[in-house]
This record gives sequence, C-alpha cells and structure tokens, in this order.
Amino acid sequence: MSRVYNFSAGPSMLPESVLREAQASLPDYQGLGFGVMEMSHRSKPFQDIVQRAEASLRSLMNISDAYAVLFVQGGASTQFAAVPLNLMNGSQSADYIDTGSFAGKAAAEAKKYGTVNVVASSKADHYTHLPVITPDLFHADADYVHITTNNTIYGTQYTTLPDTGKVPLVADMSSNILGKEYDVDQFGLIYAGAQKNIGPAGVTVVIVRKDLLGKAQAICPTMLDYAVQAKDGSLYNTPCCWSIYVAGLVFDWLLAFGGVKAIQQQNEAKAKAVYDYLDNSKLFRGVAAKADRSIMNATFVLTKDELTDEFVKFALSRGLANLKGHRSVGGIRASMYNALPLEGAQALVACMKEFEASHA
Amino acid sequence: MSRVYNFSAGPSMLPESVLREAQASLPDYQGLGFGVMEMSHRSKPFQDIVQRAEASLRSLMNISDAYAVLFVQGGASTQFAAVPLNLMNGSQSADYIDTGSFAGKAAAEAKKYGTVNVVASSKADHYTHLPVITPDLFHADADYVHITTNNTIYGTQYTTLPDTGKVPLVADMSSNILGKEYDVDQFGLIYAGAQKNIGPAGVTVVIVRKDLLGKAQAICPTMLDYAVQAKDGSLYNTPCCWSIYVAGLVFDWLLAFGGVKAIQQQNEAKAKAVYDYLDNSKLFRGVAAKADRSIMNATFVLTKDELTDEFVKFALSRGLANLKGHRSVGGIRASMYNALPLEGAQALVACMKEFEASHA
Repeated sequence: MSRVYNFSAGPSMLPESVLREAQASLPDYQGLGFGVMEMSHRSKPFQDIVQRAEASLRSLMNISDAYAVLFVQGGASTQFAAVPLNLMNGSQSADYIDTGSFAGKAAAEAKKYGTVNVVASSKADHYTHLPVITPDLFHADADYVHITTNNTIYGTQYTTLPDTGKVPLVADMSSNILGKEYDVDQFGLIYAGAQKNIGPAGVTVVIVRKDLLGKAQAICPTMLDYAVQAKDGSLYNTPCCWSIYVAGLVFDWLLAFGGVKAIQQQNEAKAKAVYDYLDNSKLFRGVAAKADRSIMNATFVLTKDELTDEFVKFALSRGLANLKGHRSVGGIRASMYNALPLEGAQALVACMKEFEASHA
Repeated sequence: MSRVYNFSAGPSMLPESVLREAQASLPDYQGLGFGVMEMSHRSKPFQDIVQRAEASLRSLMNISDAYAVLFVQGGASTQFAAVPLNLMNGSQSADYIDTGSFAGKAAAEAKKYGTVNVVASSKADHYTHLPVITPDLFHADADYVHITTNNTIYGTQYTTLPDTGKVPLVADMSSNILGKEYDVDQFGLIYAGAQKNIGPAGVTVVIVRKDLLGKAQAICPTMLDYAVQAKDGSLYNTPCCWSIYVAGLVFDWLLAFGGVKAIQQQNEAKAKAVYDYLDNSKLFRGVAAKADRSIMNATFVLTKDELTDEFVKFALSRGLANLKGHRSVGGIRASMYNALPLEGAQALVACMKEFEASHA
C-alpha cells in the first residue's frame, strides 16, 4: 500500500493507525467471531462502543452534563430540518447568518417550519469573507441564531463567536469540529456531519443543551426528535454502527495526540505554512479574506488560470491528491483536516514552490 | 480468526468473501492511496460504486425503469415518516396492516401526517400469525396500503401479497428483502434497512414507482423527499458511503451465488431443517403459526423454560452465536439471513439434538 496526502474536502483522510485497527478488527472484533458490522446494536460490545465514543468526545470537547451527545443519521442536511423542528417552538422564528452555500441551505430549509430572518450575509461578495456581526442585528424573541462555524467551500471560519445574549446559538460545525477549540457552553446546539474531522460519513454528531429538549413541533419525525434520541442513548433504532465505531477510534487517536488544543496548534502550523507561501507567491493567490481564513480549508487560485488542471496533476504525481477546488469557486482547495499531518502541508508548499519555479 | 455461525437478528452476519474484500481495500481502494471512507462522494470512483450497486440491485430484483432506486439514511424508522410525508397527498389517509412491533410503529408515525386506518391486526394474539386479509378491508381512496413483509421479532412472513387493487402497496421489507423472490411490480414502494440481507447498518434502500414522486407534503424535510434523492442519484448530500460500498459487494456476492431464486432455495432448506426438527422435538417448540413461518427468523421456546439460558450458552460453546430471543417474545430466535450458509442451520439442528438428548 502506498498512501497519499489526501486533501479531499470530505469524506476525507483518516489517521492511518485508525485505519489499521479498523481493518484488523473488521471480520472479528475482540475474538467474538464476528465484526462490528455484524453485531446487534443492543449487544453489550456495541453498547460499550457507543458509550466509549460518547465519553471520549465529551472529554475532547469538555462537554458538561448539561448537554446531551447524540450520534444520529442523515448528515448536516437532515439537521437543517431537525433544528427548526425541535427548536422553533416559541416565536417560531430564528435568525440565520448566511456565510456560504450550506448556511444558505440551512436557512431555506428552516422556512418550512417558521419565520427565518437572514440577519447578515456575504453572498453578494461570493462569500469570500464573513459578514460583520453586531448584537443589534439579532431579534430578542428569536428561538435561536444559526451560524456555520467553518465554510468548507469558501475557506472561511469564525474565530470570535457572535454575542446572541440569551438566544441560543446553534452551529453547523461540520467542517471544523475538533479542529479548533470552541467553548461548548457558548452554544445551545452544535451539529456536525462526521466525514471531515470525526470519521466516516453516515453518522452525525449533535450536542444539545438538555433544557432545549422535549419541545419539538408535532410534525417532527420521531427519528429527528432529539429528546427521543437522547432518551435512548442514540439507540432508538439501529444506528450507523460502523461509522460510530471508527469515530470512536478517531476520538481515541485525538486524545492520544494531546486533544483539541494540540491538534489546533498543528492545524494552525499547517495553515500558516500554506498561507505564508500564498502571500508571497506570484503564481498562487488566496481567495478568502485574510482575517477570516479557515485553518481547515485553504482556497486559492492560480494567477494563470489555464495552469490549474496542470497543477492538480503535478501535485498528484507527487502524492498530493484531491486538490481541485469546489465547482462553484474553481481554483484549488487544500482541505487540511486533523488527520493530515504537518508533513502533508509542507509537502504541498514544496510542490507549489517547485511548480511555480518551473512555470514562472 | 475463528468465525462463528452468527444468528444475530440484525445487524447480522455478512459473507466472509465480502468481509475479506472490504478489509483488503480499507486503507487503499484500487491503488488510489486512500480508502472508500476517505473519498469524496462526488469523485468518479465513488460514483462508480453507487452506480454499480444500483445496477446490481436492479438486476437481482428485476427492477424496471419505472422505479427509482435510492440509497438513503436513517433506517426503516425514518421511512415510517418519509412514506406518509411523500405519499399522503390525496385523501391524506392510508391503510396499515399491523403484524408486529415495527408495523405498529409505522402506523403510529403516519398518524402525524394524515389519517391511518389499521385495517387488520394480530396484536391480540401476540403477533404469532398474520391476520386474514380480504380485499374489502381496504379503502378505495387510501393513498396507499402498508405492510411489513417479514416480522423479525415474531418470525412471520408474507408469502401471498394482499390484493389492494389500484391503491399502491407499500412494504417495509427490511428483514427479508433479497431473501425470497417478490415481484417488484406489485408494489408502489419498497423500503429496507440494510442490516439484515443488504449490508452494514447506515444505508436504507428505497425502491419507488416514479409516478408516485414529486408530490410530497410541504412540511417534508428535503432529505426525506424521494424526488430530491431520485433527482440527485442518492447524492443530494454525503451518503453513508462505506455501507453503500459494502452493500454493493454483497449484491455482487449474491449475483455470483445465482441470485435471489437460488438463495431463496437455500433459505428454504435452512428453515426446513430447523422447523422439521422443532415439529418433532419434545424440548423445543415453534412460536409462529406454521402457515406464516418466516424463512429468515425462526422463533421457538423450550418447553422447559428454565433451560433457555443454558441452551444459549451451550450453543455458543459450539460456535453458534446470538440465539437469544427478542426481549418481548423471549425464548430463542435463530435469524438465518442470506449470509448464513446451510451448514449453519444444520449445525444448529445438531446442537439442538445434542442438547435435547442430554436434557430429556
């Protein structure tokens, strides 16, 4: 096997030690004679897997008992409906900040279940920066305020959270959960599809303040009702067992790495290496506003646009895969999630340098 | 590794050749340098995986172009809501046949979205048989009739489908899809969680007649709208990639086995071996009515109830795992899905014989 540095935006690179353990246990978990994909979700071994995964995630993010931690299905796109179905229960209105394609989709979906106020947007500027947020933008009677902490397609991220006062802050954290430290207590609800920093696609993490539970709209599908999932410890029905198992291995790998603070430092070092090169290059130019740059997804273009495909191929020939930008932005996107080591980012910089030297 | 005969009701046994292939490709799929869990769902290799899985399933079940085939998330329990949200669009009423715990849950969930008529039920008899169905039970203006083709907990199955006239027949086929032949053209919609005969939990198959699409209720979450999933070829958002991949391997294994007709013959032989023994045993006694017996799940009790746990342990010591019955029925349940070979059922019979001889 020859592994590459995989810059895929998601599903994305997993730590090699995690893959090795998952691979070894696949046909026979702990000598049971069958694997994790073949065991009842009600069995003791699987209950242990779920409980351990939850405990590890609580430890990594310092999640208090005031919050429920759920492993559900359907990705962030299902949460776009689940959030309003569960939380639009007071004024039946919510404030949304529009910072990208997925933030926009979240707002559009919520309109099915109540009033949506898009209080700030950077759409007119093609989402290359985050909009300026002041507390007066928010409605005091809103059921919640929704943000997207990292915008995968455009390469922007929140470092300072908006002050929403007593209104619960809800975050789609799909693309930077566990990649940088956030204080969970500042949120009413956090949700994240697994396939960037958590594990394989198929499982979605929801972290929700318990006092927000139990007030879902009557039309909320049972499977989307957080109170039901919390009561049954994410085992109301058969969950995505394998993805939960692998996510648990990733959590343990991250704990051994030193936790979120340690990986954030590495992520910042990776991002700095790439952005420093971009800021001094004549051929490559960053897309996102400097102040809002994501440490997970670096978006950039070639000043000679016609060289984009050639660069992608050049990089692949050097073992750097999946660098093509999202179709709506073009150019290059280097997604550098937790599992990408520092050497991966350094190899990318070396590759850009080599390419630029030969295409001056 | 020492594999056992795994009688788990689900998630359940997978074919060993499938496990071997999944294991080998896990860290590096086809020399790409990364695995299926680490590739974009928009990439060519993954598009090929999805399209091949769909083509194989269409071939196995002889599904015509009049039907869409979807790979979605959330299990059958999510379909309990998705079905009425998509199909309760005429009289906003539907007929349900109550043949078990999950059939009952499906009916209860549908009540959120319209009128539910439970037209037949065997609940009073603890679901040990299927209710008698006559065409006059159904409402001509119902949007659909819902059945559960195999009842995992109670060990019953439909061999003859009810005649619903022009009203679309909707089936939860989670626990016997691909285990026996059904004529897809007799259904408006079939759905099935993967974790019995299809593959790992996390993916749900929906087979739906295309003329039923596009009329979802306004409150239907986008992710539950079959028309959206059909338009995007199950790739509206990131699907449960790994489970779809393994399901595709299972489909190919089943095609190589000879298809559904061939596996049904084996399943019938497995069931016959067990039921024949039960019908001649003094210690073991079948639970389900003979006419309605499932070929997937054989439920039985010991006439000396106090020996139940001892038998479960006895069987495990002989490499036969997960035979304990569902908590609501008790006794023993031998789930004999497609991946369990004939030798597994024969080993179970030999084990029962040995146990009975020593506990006469």
